[in-house]
Amino acid sequence: MSGLEILGFVAAILTTVCWLPQAFRTLRTKDTKSLSLLTQSAFTLGVGLWLIYGILAGNAPIIFANSVTFVLVAAILAMKLRYG
Amino acid sequence: MSGLEILGFVAAILTTVCWLPQAFRTLRTKDTKSLSLLTQSAFTLGVGLWLIYGILAGNAPIIFANSVTFVLVAAILAMKLRYG
Repeated sequence: MSGLEILGFVAAILTTVCWLPQAFRTLRTKDTKSLSLLTQSAFTLGVGLWLIYGILAGNAPIIFANSVTFVLVAAILAMKLRYG
Repeated sequence: MSGLEILGFVAAILTTVCWLPQAFRTLRTKDTKSLSLLTQSAFTLGVGLWLIYGILAGNAPIIFANSVTFVLVAAILAMKLRYG
């Protein structure tokens, strides 16, 4: 694995697992007041489109990163819709 | 431009500009209570690493998408650090 590949790998891991603390915080506090519904909706839709793109392009890293991210950000969106 | 390229383009636009409403909402309300500091920090760092990756790989779409995203998410992180 080249240095560039490792950098991309670390970047992908960070922008994927970073949604875990937000999901757990929201689950625990049920507080979604500061979250923008428009941002959360558009981001979830965008990540979903990246996932479809990865599937159609047969790109395993894009599929993996975006499926994990999609589950987390869709859960945050669902809590925003529920708690307002 | 192929259908797949258009899909990737729409996905990239969505996951980039989606941070505008959150940035403006936070700027207006100064309310960052529901935002996870760990998520915001790790996401900003990850997007920054994607930007460096794009520069080193000479990939214009990655550079463009991540530089716009970086400005927006770094601004949200700065407000989280300021308003708590």
